[in-house]
Amino acid sequence: MKAAIVAVGSELLGPSRLDTNSLWLAGKLDEAGIPVVRKACVGDDAGAIAAEIREASRRAPIVVVTGGLGPTADDLTREAVGEFSGRPSAIDPGILEEIRGRFARRGIAMPAINEKQALVVEGTRPLRNPRGSAPGIWLETEEGIVACLPGVPSEMKRMFEELVFPEIVRRFAAPPRSRRVLKIAAMGESAVEERVGPVYAKWSAHAFTILASVGEVQLHLVAAGAPEVAARLLDAQTEDFERALPGRIYGRDDDTLESVVGARLRDLGATLATAESCTGGLIAQRITDVPGSSDYFRGGVVAYANDVKTGALGVRPETLAAHGAVSEETAREMAEGARGKFGADFALSATGVAGPGGGTPEKPVGSVWIALAAKGRETRARFLRPPGDRATIRAWTASAALEMLRRTMAGADTD
Amino acid sequence: MKAAIVAVGSELLGPSRLDTNSLWLAGKLDEAGIPVVRKACVGDDAGAIAAEIREASRRAPIVVVTGGLGPTADDLTREAVGEFSGRPSAIDPGILEEIRGRFARRGIAMPAINEKQALVVEGTRPLRNPRGSAPGIWLETEEGIVACLPGVPSEMKRMFEELVFPEIVRRFAAPPRSRRVLKIAAMGESAVEERVGPVYAKWSAHAFTILASVGEVQLHLVAAGAPEVAARLLDAQTEDFERALPGRIYGRDDDTLESVVGARLRDLGATLATAESCTGGLIAQRITDVPGSSDYFRGGVVAYANDVKTGALGVRPETLAAHGAVSEETAREMAEGARGKFGADFALSATGVAGPGGGTPEKPVGSVWIALAAKGRETRARFLRPPGDRATIRAWTASAALEMLRRTMAGADTD
Repeated sequence: MKAAIVAVGSELLGPSRLDTNSLWLAGKLDEAGIPVVRKACVGDDAGAIAAEIREASRRAPIVVVTGGLGPTADDLTREAVGEFSGRPSAIDPGILEEIRGRFARRGIAMPAINEKQALVVEGTRPLRNPRGSAPGIWLETEEGIVACLPGVPSEMKRMFEELVFPEIVRRFAAPPRSRRVLKIAAMGESAVEERVGPVYAKWSAHAFTILASVGEVQLHLVAAGAPEVAARLLDAQTEDFERALPGRIYGRDDDTLESVVGARLRDLGATLATAESCTGGLIAQRITDVPGSSDYFRGGVVAYANDVKTGALGVRPETLAAHGAVSEETAREMAEGARGKFGADFALSATGVAGPGGGTPEKPVGSVWIALAAKGRETRARFLRPPGDRATIRAWTASAALEMLRRTMAGADTD
Repeated sequence: MKAAIVAVGSELLGPSRLDTNSLWLAGKLDEAGIPVVRKACVGDDAGAIAAEIREASRRAPIVVVTGGLGPTADDLTREAVGEFSGRPSAIDPGILEEIRGRFARRGIAMPAINEKQALVVEGTRPLRNPRGSAPGIWLETEEGIVACLPGVPSEMKRMFEELVFPEIVRRFAAPPRSRRVLKIAAMGESAVEERVGPVYAKWSAHAFTILASVGEVQLHLVAAGAPEVAARLLDAQTEDFERALPGRIYGRDDDTLESVVGARLRDLGATLATAESCTGGLIAQRITDVPGSSDYFRGGVVAYANDVKTGALGVRPETLAAHGAVSEETAREMAEGARGKFGADFALSATGVAGPGGGTPEKPVGSVWIALAAKGRETRARFLRPPGDRATIRAWTASAALEMLRRTMAGADTD
């Protein structure tokens, strides 16, 4: 039971793009206990793609190919499958109709070049793509199967989950493994690592992975065995990690900090507003990334200019004059102003020096104040000093603000 | 003149690590005009590594292998080279002495396991590693060369630059190449492709790549020859693409839509404000991603709730009642309200149904209105119907709004 992945696209061979689809695929295949034994990236050349499919099939019975199914002249995976299987292809009228329909629903005529997406190689089965115009290809070989999926991650993932994975599990499944991801926001990787060290030691026979991105640390847990057995093991490990990081694990698996915060606001029947300077709309954008956020998100102000802070948020000019825009006092007044203006139960604010310019000896780049105003409570403010560049400082600040709200709603008022 | 890269390491086949060495190598090889035609990742298995080296050598005369040269039991690239070349290997006393010396200088005895790093396959040449204990391997084959380097990026880079690259340039060098990327916003890939088809045909001897992400299409151009010659060629091609896509190429190379819009606002001495509903702060966030954006960005309102649209932006309740929040009229009043409120020269607005909920038969998910209010001009509005999920609809809308502003500032008022 082994899999090989082939990623198609000349851009993946240059100096700036990596095949990240394979990470997700490796994770999914791993759930079925199927290891990926090799990966290859190949350019937009039908002969070369066919050679890679051939080589991959020699190495593993399960081959997943991503990319090269678009409508343009350099999308050549269909042609490669024809070359690999040695069979002719023809336009499938049903698929052509479906593609035409997709365009028609958007009120436009199908461009002529999209026609080739309806080409089907004899002996292969098209895989429906509910999110895009590129159908996938399912091909049975003597050695196993080849599944070709689009390179667009959202289309690839959905088609793999709905059409390819169940079929692979049915045919090849080895004993399953369960995974769980525990997520921590606005805490550094080494700080997390230090606290969870004893848990690692206790469960030393198990493999944990710690993964850090800006403003978030993830603990990846894996357990083999039947789902109930594995779940019990993961529960026991989770308990230990929660004890090592009290109140700091905000969610698991597909949770995002904003989805967890949103769900809690909904439970409380509470509303939220934002007042952002250095984050420039990032906090509001993350909150509204969550479908249904209009249930609890009232709105926000991006107050970039100082007179917007006074005019739109009611920050007092004297506060700005005495303490500056990046100060505890300004952060507090921004949050309180947004709460009042939008009539919300909670309001988050952020003001800081995101850089690269604008730093001073007293307030160097990376100096940030966040505040949380809450109905019936005292406004709280926190100073942050995230390291890194402009994008990192902004992202970390947004996470820290959302985490401040989450912890407050969870009753963990102090840090 | 072609190269292939093989990255060795089981960790590169899991769900969390990518082979990033190949990006750097692709960039370096490109400087010498040598394209990478394929990359492969393989696990810690001597037979599998040997098979990958064999396959890579068939595809390209230059093969660079990274990783698998360490001292541990799962470092098997040396063994794989032996298997690939079919020749025996033996400890090289000189290298062994060197490795021993490295440890001695740090005051420790060489661990026994490091001895195997002195194994040299007959007919290969060891490559000195000034930064670590793992020597590299240089192997000549009938087809070309195979260079094996450690996986540690700092060691790999130094050895490639000092030992491998000069030798490759000496033997294989083709004339150098120059690259250029042309960028188009808020236009579909097939729409771009259809318009540039004739340019492709005219320059059919040259390789173009078209790359699409949400709201952006990139044309990647490559030209061989001395830098001045290549630049002239790229200029001529660029001119043709600009003619095929009049006014639609917003920038090149490292430009982003928001950096181009920002630079133009600064040139004009003009200011900008935003009024966002469905994009939830994404437009403001992209504008403020650019360092120095406080020079021209005044601020914005994220008006999620309807009474925020009236209260904070001055949208008339009658407008909302008569036309709804997602309408041309509301979009116009949002933009005009933001321009007035923030005292800006330009204001962008967006209101739409980002989904997945909230769609109606008249206004299905993906229905979006954007508007641009400008000092001394009539407010303009546009209807969009971006395909895809919530994130895609939001991202496309933000790009379309920024592109509307860019084109207006460029004097291309009509679409």
